[in-house]
Amino acid sequence: MSNDPFTEPETTREEILAAAYRALRTRGYGDVTISAIGEEFEKSPSLIYRHYDSKDDLIVECLQYLLDRFESQQIDAEIEDPRDRLDAFVRTSLVEEIPDDDRQFVATLVELRARAVHDEAYRRHFTESDRALKQYLASILRSGIDSGEFLECDPGRVAETLLVMITGVAIRRSTTTDEAWIPAVRAEIDSYLEERVYAERADRSTE
Amino acid sequence: MSNDPFTEPETTREEILAAAYRALRTRGYGDVTISAIGEEFEKSPSLIYRHYDSKDDLIVECLQYLLDRFESQQIDAEIEDPRDRLDAFVRTSLVEEIPDDDRQFVATLVELRARAVHDEAYRRHFTESDRALKQYLASILRSGIDSGEFLECDPGRVAETLLVMITGVAIRRSTTTDEAWIPAVRAEIDSYLEERVYAERADRSTE
Repeated sequence: MSNDPFTEPETTREEILAAAYRALRTRGYGDVTISAIGEEFEKSPSLIYRHYDSKDDLIVECLQYLLDRFESQQIDAEIEDPRDRLDAFVRTSLVEEIPDDDRQFVATLVELRARAVHDEAYRRHFTESDRALKQYLASILRSGIDSGEFLECDPGRVAETLLVMITGVAIRRSTTTDEAWIPAVRAEIDSYLEERVYAERADRSTE
Repeated sequence: MSNDPFTEPETTREEILAAAYRALRTRGYGDVTISAIGEEFEKSPSLIYRHYDSKDDLIVECLQYLLDRFESQQIDAEIEDPRDRLDAFVRTSLVEEIPDDDRQFVATLVELRARAVHDEAYRRHFTESDRALKQYLASILRSGIDSGEFLECDPGRVAETLLVMITGVAIRRSTTTDEAWIPAVRAEIDSYLEERVYAERADRSTE
């Protein structure tokens, strides 16, 4: 989701959400104020205040917009190369040289996620987005199994586990100074997928 | 770490840290104020203000105390039953019916961890505690390998991966309303350990 999803905002609402997205990619949660979002906005900031009561309302709606867009892309897309898709997913979340604005966005998402401990709107959103990502991963796995490319694993179980792993990766990456574990975890997830999903061993029978 | 580590505080400092620990186990980050810690403290709350400039100083010191205690216990302990140890670790973090105060403590730790995105003292602490947990897990794995009970896996890699998993579990548990994924992830981690570490298959040769 690192490409700009707001290349051509069509309504004022989309322009505001685009401004919020730009603010979230370049600032921490504390610095994403409505006035900071106003700086990213091309029209009068007062329009933002007219549409949203609080910065959290606006941020949650921005996250929800990104999620809806992600989900509608999944519905249309056929999964032609499940292994490439899965590899891309793991590679993206475990990239070693993360670009600065991606790093900032991941860190801000970690801060927003922690707000879900107490804030029901964030909690609803992250419950939703976990469900959507799990379904995305499970559908990749299912299509690989159907085409005979993948082993007969349990797509739901493997998808939930990958999701837990990339969630853990995002939080460790954003909250420690150490990054030496990243290639180790990357190698281990690769072995896990090799063993569990890709089945390039002599015995291709299911376990 | 769910047993009370402060059964017999010996100094005022330890009494203050014990009070902070009790507050962290029963309240969210926003509610753990110095005055709330004062309510858990048996002496005059003014003593707390004399020792600590801010609640974050006190919380970080409390976390550091718990970590030091955990580490000194590891140094003394011989690992007699590595498989039991590893199972207990996985079982504790993926327990389905989590007791209320453990749930609160895990959620508060998630909030504290997210503070590490911007706060250097928290970031130093969580870098430290990840390193300590990784060493703990790696030492269990190493002793199982040495005794011939475990497969010849790479202890560092497996330990880092388990740590990423349980970090992801803690954050998903604390920030979503869904818990249906917990048994699925538990089953998948069990299979992973079976395959990677426990080696109860016919071919006990290394890969």
